[in-house]
Amino acid sequence: MPLGMGKVFLVGAGPGDPDLLTVKALRILKQADVVVYDRLVSAEILALASGALLVDGGKRQGEQARIQNEIHQVLVEHARAGRTVVRLKAGDPMIFARGGEEWEHLLSHGIEVEVIPGVSSALAVPALAGIPPTYRGLAASFTVVAGHRENFMRTDWSQYVPLDTLVILMGVENREYIAESLIRHGRDSGQAVAFIENGTTAQERVVESTLGAVAAGRVEVEAPAVFVIGEVVRVRSRLSMARAELGDRSGRGRRGSYERA
Amino acid sequence: MPLGMGKVFLVGAGPGDPDLLTVKALRILKQADVVVYDRLVSAEILALASGALLVDGGKRQGEQARIQNEIHQVLVEHARAGRTVVRLKAGDPMIFARGGEEWEHLLSHGIEVEVIPGVSSALAVPALAGIPPTYRGLAASFTVVAGHRENFMRTDWSQYVPLDTLVILMGVENREYIAESLIRHGRDSGQAVAFIENGTTAQERVVESTLGAVAAGRVEVEAPAVFVIGEVVRVRSRLSMARAELGDRSGRGRRGSYERA
Repeated sequence: MPLGMGKVFLVGAGPGDPDLLTVKALRILKQADVVVYDRLVSAEILALASGALLVDGGKRQGEQARIQNEIHQVLVEHARAGRTVVRLKAGDPMIFARGGEEWEHLLSHGIEVEVIPGVSSALAVPALAGIPPTYRGLAASFTVVAGHRENFMRTDWSQYVPLDTLVILMGVENREYIAESLIRHGRDSGQAVAFIENGTTAQERVVESTLGAVAAGRVEVEAPAVFVIGEVVRVRSRLSMARAELGDRSGRGRRGSYERA
Repeated sequence: MPLGMGKVFLVGAGPGDPDLLTVKALRILKQADVVVYDRLVSAEILALASGALLVDGGKRQGEQARIQNEIHQVLVEHARAGRTVVRLKAGDPMIFARGGEEWEHLLSHGIEVEVIPGVSSALAVPALAGIPPTYRGLAASFTVVAGHRENFMRTDWSQYVPLDTLVILMGVENREYIAESLIRHGRDSGQAVAFIENGTTAQERVVESTLGAVAAGRVEVEAPAVFVIGEVVRVRSRLSMARAELGDRSGRGRRGSYERA
């Protein structure tokens, strides 16, 4: 490895709120020469990398393969030029983000890599909306699934029927098919579900419904949103009620983020 | 709500490395009057709450219910006395940590609660050890399960057989039973598994094996450790090889955390 070789940090940006970056991610962002960011990383977080060249590595449907090759190339080139490169991904870099692939590719090109995990949107977005992924007596496990078209088509959805909490990322577009598949294989159509749009940000919106209503096409949601299926969704109403009482008692009518829906 | 009422922050301490605290968690820790911490939170992280009274809220097998009631009481009392209280849990507060229960309990006692998610050990510990929970072509989903005795006994392990990556927390003690149950219901005994002890810290140790060897009682591990089952475990060897080559080329022989095993 020549002297002056740069390094690539595979960094999780967390669920949206810049305050939920890790201490390490924030420090590396401030030191970065180049930040190659994904589509879902907020402008607020990018602004923290004030000294860096910002490269849009966002992928749109249908051009993933081409863009992924370009991203690999950009990362390799900047690292070889001796730069500190941050590959910034929404949530955690190893959850549906090709972080593992990029890691392997970079190492095979002789480039040092450091992984900085992030707070995963799959867990934190429901939790902050009042839906704990696990809850004693309601859910002793949770499963996180990619719901985009490519994965929807090749997945046997019957495997997810008996499980506790299901968290589906990138599933808004296919929500009807997903809900219909789960019901057809035996999941209860009356089960509670929630979609959380723009989780952890001021624009957060929560839509609560049932699996059956989603399958019937009666639930309007805008992508991106985290799609949660399971009994834990009901915890949200209990928390909302307790919080409303608290607001009444304090006379302030203060509302928490989980009551924005 | 009387003036001067305190507040409880339900905070995730992340997987161990203090650098993986969120920016928000670090700020609140430094402001805290009282920190009620769980057994797995490191001394290094507690040291950051330099101005706070530290209360050990660690639970041991068999006394969970009693301790949980005491924790509820301690949180309520300190908040009522107008203090800023941090309830600090390893990983994320809403994953197997009774965070949801504490949230409900506090609200029902008129105490304001704010949740600060953390980097979950279930995801970050494998990832930093070179095992991405998801990987294109190997795993399009992952499932996180509690493996402690209480949950082991009441769980139908056949439901986890067809799934991609399984991450089992608190499962070291029952690893033989878990592996045996999965194999008996049809999971491949040759499947790769890994245990990661003390993940993300300098004491990290990774043990790679197969499900069959675990079922046969041939794998020694010390709790606590994250137990990962799935094809993604094999990514670790590929990364290790690429990294060893990189070390050779650079002449530095630098080793990453995922090669400590």
